[in-house]
Amino acid sequence: MAEVLIGSEEYFKGIGKIHFEGKDSKNNLAFKFYDPSQTVAGKSMADHFKFAVAYWHSFCNTGNDPFGDGPKQYPWDQSSDILTRAKNKADAAFEFYTKLGVNYFCFHDVDLVDEGDADLSTYRKRLDEITDYTKAKMDASGVKLLWGTANLFSHPRYMNGASTNPDFHVVAYAGAQVKNAIDATIKLGGENYVFWGGREGYMSLLNTDMKRELDHMAQFLHCAKDYARNQGFTGTFFIEPKPMEPSKHQYDFDAATVIGFLRAYGLDNDFKLNLETNHATLANHTMEHEIQVAVDNNMLGSMDANRGDYQNGWDTDQFPVDLYELTQTCLILLESDGFQGGGINFDAKTRRNSTDLEDLFIAHIGGMDAFARAMLIAERILEESDYKKIRKSRYSTFDNGSGAEFEKGNLSLNDLSKIAHSSSHPSLISGKQEMLEYLINQYI
Amino acid sequence: MAEVLIGSEEYFKGIGKIHFEGKDSKNNLAFKFYDPSQTVAGKSMADHFKFAVAYWHSFCNTGNDPFGDGPKQYPWDQSSDILTRAKNKADAAFEFYTKLGVNYFCFHDVDLVDEGDADLSTYRKRLDEITDYTKAKMDASGVKLLWGTANLFSHPRYMNGASTNPDFHVVAYAGAQVKNAIDATIKLGGENYVFWGGREGYMSLLNTDMKRELDHMAQFLHCAKDYARNQGFTGTFFIEPKPMEPSKHQYDFDAATVIGFLRAYGLDNDFKLNLETNHATLANHTMEHEIQVAVDNNMLGSMDANRGDYQNGWDTDQFPVDLYELTQTCLILLESDGFQGGGINFDAKTRRNSTDLEDLFIAHIGGMDAFARAMLIAERILEESDYKKIRKSRYSTFDNGSGAEFEKGNLSLNDLSKIAHSSSHPSLISGKQEMLEYLINQYI
Amino acid sequence: MAEVLIGSEEYFKGIGKIHFEGKDSKNNLAFKFYDPSQTVAGKSMADHFKFAVAYWHSFCNTGNDPFGDGPKQYPWDQSSDILTRAKNKADAAFEFYTKLGVNYFCFHDVDLVDEGDADLSTYRKRLDEITDYTKAKMDASGVKLLWGTANLFSHPRYMNGASTNPDFHVVAYAGAQVKNAIDATIKLGGENYVFWGGREGYMSLLNTDMKRELDHMAQFLHCAKDYARNQGFTGTFFIEPKPMEPSKHQYDFDAATVIGFLRAYGLDNDFKLNLETNHATLANHTMEHEIQVAVDNNMLGSMDANRGDYQNGWDTDQFPVDLYELTQTCLILLESDGFQGGGINFDAKTRRNSTDLEDLFIAHIGGMDAFARAMLIAERILEESDYKKIRKSRYSTFDNGSGAEFEKGNLSLNDLSKIAHSSSHPSLISGKQEMLEYLINQYI
Amino acid sequence: MAEVLIGSEEYFKGIGKIHFEGKDSKNNLAFKFYDPSQTVAGKSMADHFKFAVAYWHSFCNTGNDPFGDGPKQYPWDQSSDILTRAKNKADAAFEFYTKLGVNYFCFHDVDLVDEGDADLSTYRKRLDEITDYTKAKMDASGVKLLWGTANLFSHPRYMNGASTNPDFHVVAYAGAQVKNAIDATIKLGGENYVFWGGREGYMSLLNTDMKRELDHMAQFLHCAKDYARNQGFTGTFFIEPKPMEPSKHQYDFDAATVIGFLRAYGLDNDFKLNLETNHATLANHTMEHEIQVAVDNNMLGSMDANRGDYQNGWDTDQFPVDLYELTQTCLILLESDGFQGGGINFDAKTRRNSTDLEDLFIAHIGGMDAFARAMLIAERILEESDYKKIRKSRYSTFDNGSGAEFEKGNLSLNDLSKIAHSSSHPSLISGKQEMLEYLINQYI
Repeated sequence: MAEVLIGSEEYFKGIGKIHFEGKDSKNNLAFKFYDPSQTVAGKSMADHFKFAVAYWHSFCNTGNDPFGDGPKQYPWDQSSDILTRAKNKADAAFEFYTKLGVNYFCFHDVDLVDEGDADLSTYRKRLDEITDYTKAKMDASGVKLLWGTANLFSHPRYMNGASTNPDFHVVAYAGAQVKNAIDATIKLGGENYVFWGGREGYMSLLNTDMKRELDHMAQFLHCAKDYARNQGFTGTFFIEPKPMEPSKHQYDFDAATVIGFLRAYGLDNDFKLNLETNHATLANHTMEHEIQVAVDNNMLGSMDANRGDYQNGWDTDQFPVDLYELTQTCLILLESDGFQGGGINFDAKTRRNSTDLEDLFIAHIGGMDAFARAMLIAERILEESDYKKIRKSRYSTFDNGSGAEFEKGNLSLNDLSKIAHSSSHPSLISGKQEMLEYLINQYI
Repeated sequence: MAEVLIGSEEYFKGIGKIHFEGKDSKNNLAFKFYDPSQTVAGKSMADHFKFAVAYWHSFCNTGNDPFGDGPKQYPWDQSSDILTRAKNKADAAFEFYTKLGVNYFCFHDVDLVDEGDADLSTYRKRLDEITDYTKAKMDASGVKLLWGTANLFSHPRYMNGASTNPDFHVVAYAGAQVKNAIDATIKLGGENYVFWGGREGYMSLLNTDMKRELDHMAQFLHCAKDYARNQGFTGTFFIEPKPMEPSKHQYDFDAATVIGFLRAYGLDNDFKLNLETNHATLANHTMEHEIQVAVDNNMLGSMDANRGDYQNGWDTDQFPVDLYELTQTCLILLESDGFQGGGINFDAKTRRNSTDLEDLFIAHIGGMDAFARAMLIAERILEESDYKKIRKSRYSTFDNGSGAEFEKGNLSLNDLSKIAHSSSHPSLISGKQEMLEYLINQYI
Repeated sequence: MAEVLIGSEEYFKGIGKIHFEGKDSKNNLAFKFYDPSQTVAGKSMADHFKFAVAYWHSFCNTGNDPFGDGPKQYPWDQSSDILTRAKNKADAAFEFYTKLGVNYFCFHDVDLVDEGDADLSTYRKRLDEITDYTKAKMDASGVKLLWGTANLFSHPRYMNGASTNPDFHVVAYAGAQVKNAIDATIKLGGENYVFWGGREGYMSLLNTDMKRELDHMAQFLHCAKDYARNQGFTGTFFIEPKPMEPSKHQYDFDAATVIGFLRAYGLDNDFKLNLETNHATLANHTMEHEIQVAVDNNMLGSMDANRGDYQNGWDTDQFPVDLYELTQTCLILLESDGFQGGGINFDAKTRRNSTDLEDLFIAHIGGMDAFARAMLIAERILEESDYKKIRKSRYSTFDNGSGAEFEKGNLSLNDLSKIAHSSSHPSLISGKQEMLEYLINQYI
Repeated sequence: MAEVLIGSEEYFKGIGKIHFEGKDSKNNLAFKFYDPSQTVAGKSMADHFKFAVAYWHSFCNTGNDPFGDGPKQYPWDQSSDILTRAKNKADAAFEFYTKLGVNYFCFHDVDLVDEGDADLSTYRKRLDEITDYTKAKMDASGVKLLWGTANLFSHPRYMNGASTNPDFHVVAYAGAQVKNAIDATIKLGGENYVFWGGREGYMSLLNTDMKRELDHMAQFLHCAKDYARNQGFTGTFFIEPKPMEPSKHQYDFDAATVIGFLRAYGLDNDFKLNLETNHATLANHTMEHEIQVAVDNNMLGSMDANRGDYQNGWDTDQFPVDLYELTQTCLILLESDGFQGGGINFDAKTRRNSTDLEDLFIAHIGGMDAFARAMLIAERILEESDYKKIRKSRYSTFDNGSGAEFEKGNLSLNDLSKIAHSSSHPSLISGKQEMLEYLINQYI
């Protein structure tokens, strides 16, 4: 396969294949820590992370925000012909994947080719054509599809939601769009399929029947899941929690809320979570909390990597760089079975004013290096330090004796009371938080 | 029964029975809207609300905060003898209940009588004695116990949690304390029993096995529930969600999280939610959202009424005055079956610098009036305006035809897609949010 | 003058002149409280408020957000000819102003006519032509310009700021644009001129010389002010504080920050503040705090009326409806001299999914009614209640004796110490917060 | 002088002098990066940082919070005699300082010796006695006083503020207390004197005359400053900004607000800022922003080092560990003249459940090491990387030509406009934020 796959035009001129140069390199266009073939805890870095590039932020988004138009002028976005433009974009994307050295990408249907004013049939034809084109590039490059999804929030028709829209006509339309996106995902060998809530939520409770909308959402997910299974899809479905934005309240608020929803509606066998850092922090959680919740419920499917800004309250989707967040994430990944089906998709965008094409490379390289370094740090913490032992020993009174009986459900409240009466007053045992924080810092 | 029950000393001198004087009264010590016997939507105000006074904030809390000692010097808190002090406090409390005209109160074990350095047996004796005293006052006044609970967070022994403490000895101690609190609740005819998370959560994930702690919490709740049922308690158990404070993360984060937890551990038949306004807003929810979530899951047990401060991030527990929050709460109460077992407990405290004894009356009167007015407003909105109709008609496409088939689970994704292909493009239907907000304002 | 000014086409068909119908009306298209000619505290409502409609939100903004295109399809926005489209928009705007009965509007340069790809000279010609057209409509209707401004943030050239852009070429370009906007404002008899920070701030301190940028901003404001004064402009300049968004940090963070900036750079004689509710709350202030800060510094110029959402952290610009926020605002307005030069501009937008043209009327009517009612409530509180007296009497120890000497600067620290030694210990005097909150509720 | 100064009893048994062991050490009770004598950018680490220990958190605070009593039982806090207890505490403190190897401490008056029910004269006698004792220990150990202050917020008398209290009697009392604290500071050779706002702010604007309170605060600061200068004090006064807590609104909101206040009242020659990390983040600023604001205004006096929790909204005062926050702080310190008079005081507390005495050592060692490492990182970034050059070159268009003329104030708005008309359209120049973030990560 082609190490670097360039289309009819090279878009990232002057940038070649990104190589691992080791931690002393000062080359912005080289990896200092990410060496895909290096083994960490028995698995290659590439297999641990399964890094994916997000089509939307990296190749579609020109940087518009509520206060202005996008300043990014992509050379692949200049043709007036929709399919030519889509193919140029695919060329740029695969050039980028292969130069960067990631093995995966992710997309929404309308990332691949614009919808514009097309009706359903017209758009389906476009999608078929661009997925043919994309499939050929995947074959030529070996790059795979981590997951596909349908964009059910950008078009005005979804202004009141998609599967939770109060108007059944929109629900049906969303169904048609998801069918196409599932077909495309299967065609491209997608390993998973994602539902991000988009506008599934409400702007005001005053006009909303929340229960009815949640019933509709669950029913819709059942339809989609049944269809995909009938088509032979064996991958996992993911729900991506987010607490707010664009809606005032998003139904998929956080990991705990989504897990409760999936179980209540009998969807928990087929669906897992795709967790995003910035969504976690918008919900007043740390990312490591959300990941731990998912792991503890056997629900960690995949991750959308980015970071937020702690001084404001919206989804900034900045590239991940914080070794603290990432090390704690990697600690949990290494102590558990890691992602179930998914990997790490960079759902991150360069800042609106990062208008150089090289910025896209530097941002991804910085993010991949940060993850790689965090994984190496986590490995050393787990192998060299007392980190695990300290936590485990805090619970040692439950490992045998009355504590173990309690865990087994063999003690009544009366038993507990009797034990307390016959014991000396409990000791105050330090939580050693500062020591553990200092320990983490010693390995960073 | 005594209309006003005064003990050996009158504590709120100069303040008599609080009467309803109607909306034109300017008397701070009279109700303008709360008329307990007035019927709203077929039920008396007293029965709708079941207002309760919180022992801790109103009779124990002297206003200490992390930056200073409490400035409130209560006349009932001056004796150096623990039981005398406790009885004086009970006298003050029942004087207050009966002058104010509330029918309920709520307590933690240590509100009734101080624990101090007492060991379990000594404290149990104190508790027996003060509950004898309290029961007599209840009988004499007709004031009832809405719910009881155990304070499992103030004593240093609980610094790492109670039922989720990593040390089994503390779990056992908590068991003894809950047993006593349940006994006291049953003895006083308590209608419900509450668990507020206290320090059930973590300060740092680095030293925490969240899954093991949640298992312990569930096991502990089972013990408590089984014990109470064996003792003949038929009331409901409540969990009170809170997202943070005192812990960095509280396990009972919000309504959705707690409902998921109760179901996962088989506790959902015996437990419902006790929702607090300030806890809702700390979790980035409106109170009406949390109430709606509870109602939709048949889990609305009771309410801790207060309000937070939107410009800061801790639990200020201010008295409720906001007619918007309360009207939307009452709208949901009137459209549903209301509280299941519980009522409205004022888990609110006068500001630290509200040092006049009359402030406690004014604060409660203001809160009760605000609820009463909100209920009257809600009744009119539901009876006189198009409020319900507007919301219902938004979903009318699901009331019959394909939409109804979708709701019944009779349509596949293929069916949805076919319907979409054969329909015209969905219309953009205004959500009419501004109209509904204006409508609410017209009834306030 | 025309009571209702309709252009070549009527855009808001079926909606006529909005009338005052009194508080029992249930007509969404009538005022219940806002009666422009009613006198409150010696001034007509119209003169107190000087309500203005914002061109951008009401006639330009189609509802795009970071997650999707705008669903609002305005009938005045359909022509492919730039000036025809601009004139149609002006027709719609003046039809709206006159039907609604507001006397003022506000604009950015590019609201009046699109910039598109025009160079400076081309755009100036467009602006001259549309201001001719606008002036004629102003003359015909009597509607006036509260303030004008230049949009220095939407065009990609301003992605790194306008007057604080690190590239001087952009600063110069901003200068040209501001010159045009000032010329247009003067031509249309604008009573004030506004600077909203836009992207004057930073995305990252790592690449920012904050001091140099603030120096540039001040220098730029001096240039603009000097130019306008030379052209005979006698109105006031306003700065509009905002703490964040679109930038991570906006230099005009809040009222106190801007006042400090204006004084440090000698701009405080010509500039005052234009305060926006949602910006206040994003800065962790109440709106009444920001207004009081401005009043206390003689800096209250004007107000951008809207409200935010307390459960999220971005600028939602919802229409004002909260009688608490507005009553407290009106209390300060009535206790001070009110706005100096400005008035109340509805910098508010209907929700993205409020797609009916009537929604724009209902939203404004609801906002104007809320202000009118709040003003009437505030008047009664000031005239009928003890509100003012309670606050004033708290400070009575400074009205004479040693307290008054202290205020005059006649006491040293030694004097204070001696007074304290010779006095009894200070009393604890209740702040009566609950009583005051209850008082406010009694007048709402 | 004594390397380690132990009093009549050794309190931190088993812990000796803390030594620098280098970065490979895993000894929790040794420095890995902080080597006081190591030179960084021409100055020893000890001189750069002037680390100080806070008396209140480290030796007085037992861990009480709004939900419970403090679990920390200090061996030096057991005597029932006030002065014995105070001397034991001083013994423990100086043992700690000298074992840890810090050269400075900071105190509030009531940290040194309890106030209890003492009247002013009685307390003054206590203070005189304990400062005699403290002075002797300072002389014996060489440990110095970075700054002193008066606690004007813990005692109930200050529940409505100290210098901003509406009751003049409290202002006078605060004056007496500040006089004592200044006397004590001078006696102990304190290098600076601090005012933290405490309860200078409001709980509700409804009962507050903000302008009058600010006038009083300024007048009080003038009194204090004049007194201290008369007594020969030549150090700097610091104000410590905080936006909220304990009050709803604190007058010293943030750096910009305080600088504006100091200038408005003519206090800016004698006062500078003492910035605290957690206060910065509560005000929605980064710490580096606040430090840069202070530096740019020549107002950086000192720093209270700690960190907050980004998932909640109160002052957690955790020990600093975050290398990102600290590196960016050190970058500004090294690029400016550093602290003017002050240093780094650990205004941080071990977690409530960190009940081992060694936790206090580990927390400080971890903090000092983090600062030392951050300073070394910052030095390398400034010396080895393009960091400074990249930022400086962004502004190069202002270094000469028209841009330089603009900076000098030689261009009018007309000039700017002409320049823009005669130039090509400005380029879009990338802000290179991701590159700079990646650069920082490469040096951590």
